[in-house]
Amino acid sequence: MDKAPPVTERSPMTLSATLVLASGNPGKLREFAQLLAPLGMQVRPQSDFAVPEVEETGLTFVENALLKAREASRVSGLPALADDSGLEVDALDGAPGIYSARFAGEPKSDARNNTRLLEALAEVPEGRRTARYWCVLVFLRHAEDPVPIIVQRSWEGEILAHPRGEGGFGYDPLFWLPDQGLSVAELPAAEKNRLSHRGRALQALVERFRGGDKAP
Amino acid sequence: MDKAPPVTERSPMTLSATLVLASGNPGKLREFAQLLAPLGMQVRPQSDFAVPEVEETGLTFVENALLKAREASRVSGLPALADDSGLEVDALDGAPGIYSARFAGEPKSDARNNTRLLEALAEVPEGRRTARYWCVLVFLRHAEDPVPIIVQRSWEGEILAHPRGEGGFGYDPLFWLPDQGLSVAELPAAEKNRLSHRGRALQALVERFRGGDKAP
Repeated sequence: MDKAPPVTERSPMTLSATLVLASGNPGKLREFAQLLAPLGMQVRPQSDFAVPEVEETGLTFVENALLKAREASRVSGLPALADDSGLEVDALDGAPGIYSARFAGEPKSDARNNTRLLEALAEVPEGRRTARYWCVLVFLRHAEDPVPIIVQRSWEGEILAHPRGEGGFGYDPLFWLPDQGLSVAELPAAEKNRLSHRGRALQALVERFRGGDKAP
Repeated sequence: MDKAPPVTERSPMTLSATLVLASGNPGKLREFAQLLAPLGMQVRPQSDFAVPEVEETGLTFVENALLKAREASRVSGLPALADDSGLEVDALDGAPGIYSARFAGEPKSDARNNTRLLEALAEVPEGRRTARYWCVLVFLRHAEDPVPIIVQRSWEGEILAHPRGEGGFGYDPLFWLPDQGLSVAELPAAEKNRLSHRGRALQALVERFRGGDKAP
């Protein structure tokens, strides 16, 4: 069992120098590695350890993130970081939610998911198309860590009637940011990393690691 | 499905006036009800709805609390609040942790749990008997809420070599508070509610409900 000191509000964490990221996404790996490098932390992809894909059976983002982090930690023997994220649309009672990546069924397809979202909202007028992206990050010191660090951050927007922009992924072409007057897919990548649910969750996690946050 | 607005950092929550507490403990019910009454929220015990006991199969406090809250919400049709708590002892690699209530096996017994803890620490000298209580609270707007409010708070102390005091429950007679010069079982109840992991978690949750906290 990992003997890193427990995470409490007492003091800054002492961390193992290396953690495994429970994701196969190279973009995420780069972003996480950049933000954690100044803390002396190295991020390794779970592909380095042949971590098998886990079934995301949770009913919340945090439960799914925990399933992924736990498996990555178990197989690698390292502390593990995982994220789970999705889109919550008010007019759809919160759907697609934890099913965002598979909203239009298998195989997963951003294009088909976007089409299905537009169809579901076809009768919903502007002004009632409010939505938010969620990102939930969890960090486990070891596979049996009973008190993960948990960070949940959202990003508010509205669902467009037609896609705009070429950047990003997922529902980004349909996710309108009123303050910016742009869809997320039109937002420069650096700007997206600064403003987004994932970027802000990651910044919050870094603060937590630094001991600047008061409690897990 | 409950249509209460989602919890984000945008604005104070609008809450259903009534929630169910996923606990059969009258002391907890009273404490939670007192703190939530000023917000116009009523707390009902899950016994009002004959919520069956769930198996706590989670590997973290938060997963166990979610299992309990979800079942209470599913059966009652109300938003649900649940807590899960335990003791983390550094010299025991974090044990008894999520198994705190059943550390000495079934049937659950505070006395036998305390005896087992003393035995496990028999060879561990003063100064290396650091420990903390954890309390994790979760609030689900409805049974399928993908983004629960989650609060985790700890309380630092040391494990005594002999029990002291008659108050409290669980490991309180063995949990020494260096700042107070008392065991938790010697601490007046009001003082315990103010300082404890559970009291502070509940206060943090109330702040979250009030919208004073920046993010779930």
